[in-house]
Amino acid sequence: MAFHYPNGRRFVQAAQKPIARPLKQMSYSNRGKTLEDDLNDSNEYYLANGIAVIHKKPVPIQIVDVHYPQRSAAVIKEAYFKQASTTDYNGVYKGRYIDFEAKETKSPTSFPLKNFHEHQIEHMNHVVNQAGIAFVIMRFTAVEETYLMKSGTLAYYWERMLSGGRKSITKDEVKESSLKVPLGFQPRIDYIKVIDTFI
Amino acid sequence: MAFHYPNGRRFVQAAQKPIARPLKQMSYSNRGKTLEDDLNDSNEYYLANGIAVIHKKPVPIQIVDVHYPQRSAAVIKEAYFKQASTTDYNGVYKGRYIDFEAKETKSPTSFPLKNFHEHQIEHMNHVVNQAGIAFVIMRFTAVEETYLMKSGTLAYYWERMLSGGRKSITKDEVKESSLKVPLGFQPRIDYIKVIDTFI
Repeated sequence: MAFHYPNGRRFVQAAQKPIARPLKQMSYSNRGKTLEDDLNDSNEYYLANGIAVIHKKPVPIQIVDVHYPQRSAAVIKEAYFKQASTTDYNGVYKGRYIDFEAKETKSPTSFPLKNFHEHQIEHMNHVVNQAGIAFVIMRFTAVEETYLMKSGTLAYYWERMLSGGRKSITKDEVKESSLKVPLGFQPRIDYIKVIDTFI
Repeated sequence: MAFHYPNGRRFVQAAQKPIARPLKQMSYSNRGKTLEDDLNDSNEYYLANGIAVIHKKPVPIQIVDVHYPQRSAAVIKEAYFKQASTTDYNGVYKGRYIDFEAKETKSPTSFPLKNFHEHQIEHMNHVVNQAGIAFVIMRFTAVEETYLMKSGTLAYYWERMLSGGRKSITKDEVKESSLKVPLGFQPRIDYIKVIDTFI
């Protein structure tokens, strides 16, 4: 249900959140939120402000058994997680198709490539061939740094691994080959601003 | 794992399917396939031929209980279906963002609006405001006719219902206000060709 102000403007809960927090918590620090939380907040902000329409896709599930109890909702009794064949986030910004995967690592020195799957790399290649904008958002949680790496760059490091090279991207390589996403207050992760620098 | 022909071209299973079917089944008739099956086939065809990258989103699920048995995959033991807040299909065609919902009706005379949810209408409005391409694909299964209705047109009939008007769109209205999608062999539902007529 959508609530509206008397002037007809839509009430948006996300915009209210920070006010409820004690002032001392209103720093730009991570506050224990995951990258996914931050991205969901940012996407809500983009949507509420008419900046972009980006959603996280539901987790893909293989449903095996469903019960239909009388007078109540269907219950899934057996299901399994499936490997995603695409990326987690997609949507539209100024008519352009946006597609990305978001991953974080605890390692302060490198980003492990096992965070990604062959299917996702392939999917991002397809998107780029179709003139879409595909990238990954990587966060080094230990140092609270977030980077946007274009899918072509990721594909380069992926190929390096497949040809016997290292199974991760060093922090220095990430720094050199990606765009840093400044951590802000609202939106938390303003990746649209970063996209603006290269489209 | 991707297979490749000796010349480097990728082996695409979807393109092989029709050959395995007996000739007498190779008509343009529905063969009992659902609209979703047909769209999935069409999307595979578009992907394999580099025409567009469109995927169906996973069904949104609220997971309540997961078991982690030793030496085997995690099992979801309790979960519920959630109402989708967006549409089922999205992707990219020539750099443009494509977003649609697909529904079929057994009624030969009208398309019931209860096939859609307020959230989906809102979502499609957001997409259009962001210069994306949003529409619904409607199939009248009784007569095997498929239409592409732009989201703005659907919004008009939706508003009519909200202001006390009829709860469905008559077949004649659909015919007049939508684009017919010819039923073909491969792809089954060539909606990209229809999109070409209005972008």
